[in-house]
Amino acid sequence: MINVISVNEKGLAIIDEMLDWEEELKVKSIELDNGATVIDCGVNVEGGYDAGMYLSRLCLADLADISYTKFDLDGLPVPAIQVATDHPTIACMASQYAGWRIAVGKYFGMGSGPARALGLKPKELYEEIGYKDDSEFAVLVMESSEIPNEEVVEYIAKHCSVDPENVYIAVAPTASIAGCVQISARIVETGIHKLESIGYDINTIKSGFGVAPIAPVVGDDTKCMGSTNDCIIYCGETYYTVEYGDVEKLEELVKKAPSTTSRDFGKPFYTTFKEAEFDFFKVDAGMFAPAKITVNDVKSKKSFTSGRINPGILLESFGIKEI
Amino acid sequence: MINVISVNEKGLAIIDEMLDWEEELKVKSIELDNGATVIDCGVNVEGGYDAGMYLSRLCLADLADISYTKFDLDGLPVPAIQVATDHPTIACMASQYAGWRIAVGKYFGMGSGPARALGLKPKELYEEIGYKDDSEFAVLVMESSEIPNEEVVEYIAKHCSVDPENVYIAVAPTASIAGCVQISARIVETGIHKLESIGYDINTIKSGFGVAPIAPVVGDDTKCMGSTNDCIIYCGETYYTVEYGDVEKLEELVKKAPSTTSRDFGKPFYTTFKEAEFDFFKVDAGMFAPAKITVNDVKSKKSFTSGRINPGILLESFGIKEI
Amino acid sequence: MINVISVNEKGLAIIDEMLDWEEELKVKSIELDNGATVIDCGVNVEGGYDAGMYLSRLCLADLADISYTKFDLDGLPVPAIQVATDHPTIACMASQYAGWRIAVGKYFGMGSGPARALGLKPKELYEEIGYKDDSEFAVLVMESSEIPNEEVVEYIAKHCSVDPENVYIAVAPTASIAGCVQISARIVETGIHKLESIGYDINTIKSGFGVAPIAPVVGDDTKCMGSTNDCIIYCGETYYTVEYGDVEKLEELVKKAPSTTSRDFGKPFYTTFKEAEFDFFKVDAGMFAPAKITVNDVKSKKSFTSGRINPGILLESFGIKEI
Repeated sequence: MINVISVNEKGLAIIDEMLDWEEELKVKSIELDNGATVIDCGVNVEGGYDAGMYLSRLCLADLADISYTKFDLDGLPVPAIQVATDHPTIACMASQYAGWRIAVGKYFGMGSGPARALGLKPKELYEEIGYKDDSEFAVLVMESSEIPNEEVVEYIAKHCSVDPENVYIAVAPTASIAGCVQISARIVETGIHKLESIGYDINTIKSGFGVAPIAPVVGDDTKCMGSTNDCIIYCGETYYTVEYGDVEKLEELVKKAPSTTSRDFGKPFYTTFKEAEFDFFKVDAGMFAPAKITVNDVKSKKSFTSGRINPGILLESFGIKEI
Repeated sequence: MINVISVNEKGLAIIDEMLDWEEELKVKSIELDNGATVIDCGVNVEGGYDAGMYLSRLCLADLADISYTKFDLDGLPVPAIQVATDHPTIACMASQYAGWRIAVGKYFGMGSGPARALGLKPKELYEEIGYKDDSEFAVLVMESSEIPNEEVVEYIAKHCSVDPENVYIAVAPTASIAGCVQISARIVETGIHKLESIGYDINTIKSGFGVAPIAPVVGDDTKCMGSTNDCIIYCGETYYTVEYGDVEKLEELVKKAPSTTSRDFGKPFYTTFKEAEFDFFKVDAGMFAPAKITVNDVKSKKSFTSGRINPGILLESFGIKEI
Repeated sequence: MINVISVNEKGLAIIDEMLDWEEELKVKSIELDNGATVIDCGVNVEGGYDAGMYLSRLCLADLADISYTKFDLDGLPVPAIQVATDHPTIACMASQYAGWRIAVGKYFGMGSGPARALGLKPKELYEEIGYKDDSEFAVLVMESSEIPNEEVVEYIAKHCSVDPENVYIAVAPTASIAGCVQISARIVETGIHKLESIGYDINTIKSGFGVAPIAPVVGDDTKCMGSTNDCIIYCGETYYTVEYGDVEKLEELVKKAPSTTSRDFGKPFYTTFKEAEFDFFKVDAGMFAPAKITVNDVKSKKSFTSGRINPGILLESFGIKEI
C-alpha cells in the first residue's frame, strides 16, 4: 500500500502551485541552463511566512495538514506552526528529514524533501521503513544561503536517476523567514527521528501531531540554526498515535525521548554549540527532540507523556526585548 | 430558504473526495453486491485523524468549518477539533446528530449524517426544525465495529426512499482514531441537543462555535465511548449566537445547559456507566452536554455563560501516564 | 513588483465565490438598476461568521491567511480570528484600511477594501506606499446599516473610473455578526496604521501576524463600534517582521505603538466615547492599536515587544454574564 503514494509527484503539484503564486509568495523561479527549476524562497528575494509554509508542504510531500497558530511564550504571543499527519514515516522520514548533505564544489546545502526517496539518502533509513519512490521528477528542498547551480543539479539528477530538466529545487537560507518556518515544521519529524535513534521501531507510528513556535530572524545562519532548533527543543510539543504493544518498552523509550533528558538541555542551543567550538560531534545528539512527547498506543490502549516545555529559554534564544 | 441546501448532495461531494484520496486517508471503499458503496474508515483498515475529519465533514454535511487545534490539559497538549457553523440546526441536528439506531439482523450501528434527513430519523425533530431533504442519494455515517452488509443497505435505502446503489456509508468503530475524531466533532451539536432537551427553541440558534479535545484510543468500544464523551462533558467549550429575545428564560436555560449541572458530573463517564450497570436509562441524560456554554443573543444584545471545564477528570479518563 | 498584484482582481474572485455560496453564507445579492452588484451580509439578512470571513478576505484582497481560533478571556473561551500576511502594506493599507468615508445624500458608510486603491482614498497613503491598482472592476466593502443605492454606486464608480455595472459592494452593519468578524480581522492593519501615525516607515513591514477575539453583538451600531474596537485595543496581539535597521528608533516607536500607552486605555471604548460626548476628535487616536505589538527586525536581527492584553476590560465591554 505504501508505495502507491509518490512523494515526488505530490511535491511536483506543490511546485506548480508555487510557480503560479510567485508574486503572492514573494519567491522567484530561475531556470538553469540544463533546464532545472530553482525556486528562490529567501536567498536573493524576501520570501516570507507563506513561502515557508510551501517549503514545509514540499518537505512533507503534502501528506500533512499544516497551519499557522499562536504560541504563548509566558505571555508573549508568537506565530507558530501546527502539523498533523497520518503518514508520519513517509512524510517525515522518507521525505522531510534533512538527510542529504549536498556539497558540490563550493556549494553546500542540506537537502530534504521528496527527492531523497529517489536517491535513498540515507539508504538504511529507506530499507528500515520499506519505502522507495519511483518518479521521473525529483523535488528537493535545500537549506542553503546559495542558489544551487547546474553542477549541483547534475549531482542531484544523477543520484536520483532523473534528467536534470526534471529537477526542482526550492531553496531558503536558515537565516530567512521561510527558513525559520520550514524548520519549525519539523516538529513531528524530530520526535520520530529521536525515537528511532533510541531504538524505537518507527514503522509502528501511525499518526503524528505537533506544534512549535516559529523563530524570529536573530542573526546569521549559525545563530538562526540555534534559535530555530530551540523552537523544537524548548517549546516543541508532539503527540503520536502508535501500534506498538510492548507497554514496558514503550514507557522506557518515551521517557528517554524528549530533549529534556539531554545533558545539554537548559541553555540556548547556540550557547551549547559555541561551547562545543561549533563541532557537532561534541554536542549531545539527544538534544534534537521535542520538549514534550505524548504517545497513545492503540494496541495496548496505554498512553504515556514525557518532557516539559521551557518558554523561558526560548525567549532567551529569541532575544525579544520587552520594552 | 432552508430547503435549498441538500445535505445529501453536500455529503455526496465529500464522499467523492474520500474515494479520490483513499491512500492518503488510509480508508478503503467496498462495493456491495447491490451496488452500494461503503467506505471503511477504521473497521478493517487503519484510518486516522484525517479520515475522522472527513467523517466529521460528512456528519455536518460540509456546513461547518472544522480544523485541528491544540488543547492544553493542565500543561499536557493534546490534539483537538474546532467547529464553526452558521447552520447549526441543519448541520448539527438535521444531519450530524446520531439519531438513527440501526439494528438489522446481527448488525448494529448508530447512524448519523445526511441520510437521516431523508428517513426523517426521528420525525419529530425534523418537524421541529422544518427541514427535510430531497435527494436520490443517501449518505450515512455509521459508528459501528462492523461493515454494513447488503441487508443493512436495503433497510436504509427503503427508509430513505432511494435505490440501494445510491446508498453511501462511511463507517468507523468508536474504538478507532477516526471514531474518536468524529465524536469530538459533535461538540456544537451536543450543546444544541442539550438545549433542546430542556425546552429551548433551537430554531433561534444562528451560529455555533466549539472546541473539544480528541480522545486517545483507551480500550474497547465501551471504554472509548466513555473517553470520547468525556472530551465534550469535561473539556468541551461552546459559543452560540442566537436570536431569542426572552432574556429571563434564556438565562435560566443557559444556566441549566452545561454538563456541570448534572448529578453525574465529576467522574469519567465510563465509571458512571459502569456504576449504572451499563444501563443507559440509569445515567442522567443531562450529562451529555459541553462543559462550558456561552450564548450571545443578538435580539436582546445580552450574553450569558455557564459551566466550567475540568481537565483533571479528562486526564483521568484518558489515562495518560506522566513519566 | 508590487503593482503586479491587482487587489480588485483578487477581490472579484472572492465576490464570485460569495455569489456561488449565497445560501451557505446566508447573504443575498442584489442587482441595482445600473447593473452594480451589492451583496448584503447583514443589513436585511442574517449573515454570519462565514460571511464575516468573506468580508475579511475581501478587505485584505485575499492576500492573507485568515482562520478562526479560540481566545481565552480569563477562562471564558470566545471565537477569535487569526490573520497572517506577507503583504502587510498592500493587504492592510492599500486595501483593508477603512479610509473612504462615503456620504452620498442620506447614505453613509465607511468604505474599505480594494476599490480604495482605484479611487486612491486617501491619496497621500497610496503615494507613501507606492501602490495603485489598475482594474476595470471596483470591489468595495461597506460598513453601513443601509444597502447602497444607485446614486452611491455612481459616486464610487466615478471616483474609481469604472462603469457602474462593474462595481461590487459587500455590506454589513457594525451591529451584525459579519460586521464584528470583519472588524476583528483588522488586527494586523490597526497596528500598521498606529505605527504609521507615530512616524514609522511602514514600507519596511514585510509580514504581519495577529489574533483578536470576535465581539458578540452587544447593542446598536455605536455600542458595537465600542466592543469591536475593544477586541483590538484590549486583546489584540500582533507580531510584525520588518526590515528597518535603526534599532534605537525602532525600540522607541515600538514602545509607543500599543494601545496601552494611550491616556484613554483602561475602560471600554464606548465609555470613553460617551464621556467625549460621541465626538471622535476628543478621543485619543492613539487608542486605536493592538494591545500587544512584537517586532522582529531582520536587518538588525533585533526584536522588541511592548504592551499587554487586558481580558478583564474586554469582558466588561462584552457584558457576558456568568451564571
